[in-house]
Amino acid sequence: MHSITQYQDYFKDYLATQKINRQPKSLYDPISYFLTLGGKRIRPILTLMTAEIFGADYKKALPAALAVEFFHNFSLIHDDIMDDAPLRRGHETVHEKWDINTGILSGDALLILAYQYFEQYEPAIFRNLAQLFSQTAIQVCEGQQWDVDFENNDQVTIPQYIKMIEYKTAVLVAAAMKMGGIIAQTSTENCDLIYDFGLNLGLAFQLQDDYLDAFGDPLTFGKQVGGDIIENKKTYLYLKALEFSTTAQREELSHLFSIKPADTTDKITSVKNVFIKTGASTATQEAIGDYTLKAFQTLEKLNISEDKKAILKKFGENLMNRKV
Amino acid sequence: MHSITQYQDYFKDYLATQKINRQPKSLYDPISYFLTLGGKRIRPILTLMTAEIFGADYKKALPAALAVEFFHNFSLIHDDIMDDAPLRRGHETVHEKWDINTGILSGDALLILAYQYFEQYEPAIFRNLAQLFSQTAIQVCEGQQWDVDFENNDQVTIPQYIKMIEYKTAVLVAAAMKMGGIIAQTSTENCDLIYDFGLNLGLAFQLQDDYLDAFGDPLTFGKQVGGDIIENKKTYLYLKALEFSTTAQREELSHLFSIKPADTTDKITSVKNVFIKTGASTATQEAIGDYTLKAFQTLEKLNISEDKKAILKKFGENLMNRKV
Repeated sequence: MHSITQYQDYFKDYLATQKINRQPKSLYDPISYFLTLGGKRIRPILTLMTAEIFGADYKKALPAALAVEFFHNFSLIHDDIMDDAPLRRGHETVHEKWDINTGILSGDALLILAYQYFEQYEPAIFRNLAQLFSQTAIQVCEGQQWDVDFENNDQVTIPQYIKMIEYKTAVLVAAAMKMGGIIAQTSTENCDLIYDFGLNLGLAFQLQDDYLDAFGDPLTFGKQVGGDIIENKKTYLYLKALEFSTTAQREELSHLFSIKPADTTDKITSVKNVFIKTGASTATQEAIGDYTLKAFQTLEKLNISEDKKAILKKFGENLMNRKV
Repeated sequence: MHSITQYQDYFKDYLATQKINRQPKSLYDPISYFLTLGGKRIRPILTLMTAEIFGADYKKALPAALAVEFFHNFSLIHDDIMDDAPLRRGHETVHEKWDINTGILSGDALLILAYQYFEQYEPAIFRNLAQLFSQTAIQVCEGQQWDVDFENNDQVTIPQYIKMIEYKTAVLVAAAMKMGGIIAQTSTENCDLIYDFGLNLGLAFQLQDDYLDAFGDPLTFGKQVGGDIIENKKTYLYLKALEFSTTAQREELSHLFSIKPADTTDKITSVKNVFIKTGASTATQEAIGDYTLKAFQTLEKLNISEDKKAILKKFGENLMNRKV
């Protein structure tokens, strides 16, 4: 087994060897640009790590890891168009640096290139990987669509919200890990268990994203603290606050989520106060804990050595203790 | 073997049995809408027909035929956004009826759904189909990008133009036919030959599209005659006219392709006159003939019975004698 930093380096080196600068440049330059913006590379690293957990050489998992990262970047490029986001990872988004058409077509190409990386595996593994990938990809599209729909829906329930983040975020984490299992040709049971581990960890991860967006430390949190509040985004915190609120609190929250003040300081403070007073903040932390625990319980059932379980648990703990 | 009309019906019936009306409706309704707009269904029919030419039951080719049609519709939905086209097959385009975001995401989903249809085949066939599909899909993206790039390029050469239409149009026709061969598990040689047949037929088809757009009979041509001329589109006719033109003709053509008059009647007449006088019109007809001939010569080399060759030739001839 290797360390996370090592997997990051292996992945970075592998990515650097891929010839993405093909013709027409107007199609491939935006792809290269976006891929070099970096990011945490959590998903591909999980594929490499899981492959080794189940006894395969991480090298065998590199093409699948790249496919996962390509897919993730495809979805980011298209999401950025839909959200009209000017920045991604501190740099201009593709549609901002070029134009919407370039964003659409580069994204499309990236999705297809992702599929091509599975061709490096033998037929049976290729089939399993491509099948899991397609299922995951369509769920991510559905999750993105739910997310878009929720913007104009005042009746979003907690189960609907969980389903949305499961599809939009968690299934790709789960699939990234299961791919490692498929490549290592471990048992179907292990594959399903590692998928569940990834799914619950992914849910915890996304809920923590919601939490940190409001309550993260501005000094260590990568993004602007309160971004979701400024955007009136219906996160888990918001939905839980509505659920637990008194009539007065509900009215205050509804009002706060209907305004877009130039100076957002007061709004952010007020909303956070409601999140705390209603108990939404605590409920969110509990939910994060619950999903993390569920992930760790799944881990116990895996048919692997205890020290390998410890590695996965450590990874999950680090992810959950992150400040960024 | 069945008739084209029969294949059309079989395909239509199969499409009708597919459950595309899933949740979220906001994602799948636009897909259902677009798929019911119809179109000639040439590509999926070619897959069914080719499978039977090589000895398989057309039923076995239905999932692949649907994948081809899904892919074609994915590319149309995204192209319509890029071209800002209000109408497709006489109806509102997806981004016009809904919005750009819906067009992007429905298109993405359609591309992924296409891949999923290959899962109905056994691993070796699945692999061959998915591999051919990815290669074709990436070429179609590249062709679309060349097409976009050519709009702002005054130095487009004939070989570049041919490469563009080969990627944007012909490879999908070729792949649709080769898929029939793969499903029927015919020889690699037959697969490659039928691909070449489809490629050359696809090139002839697209050049004829260029030709009919200017010289088609308004009574039988489905679209507005002169549409490309109104849009100042650099078609084969235009590039050949530039190549063959005298200085005066070149100046006239350049002027005509720099204006966008409200009444387009005179412009269309003048441009068509230049196309005829320079010999571009004749040269285009010759090129159509050349590619058709090339396709038919490839046909001769196929290891199938003479009556099956005759069926493919008949299909090609009908396609080339079309007025729409």
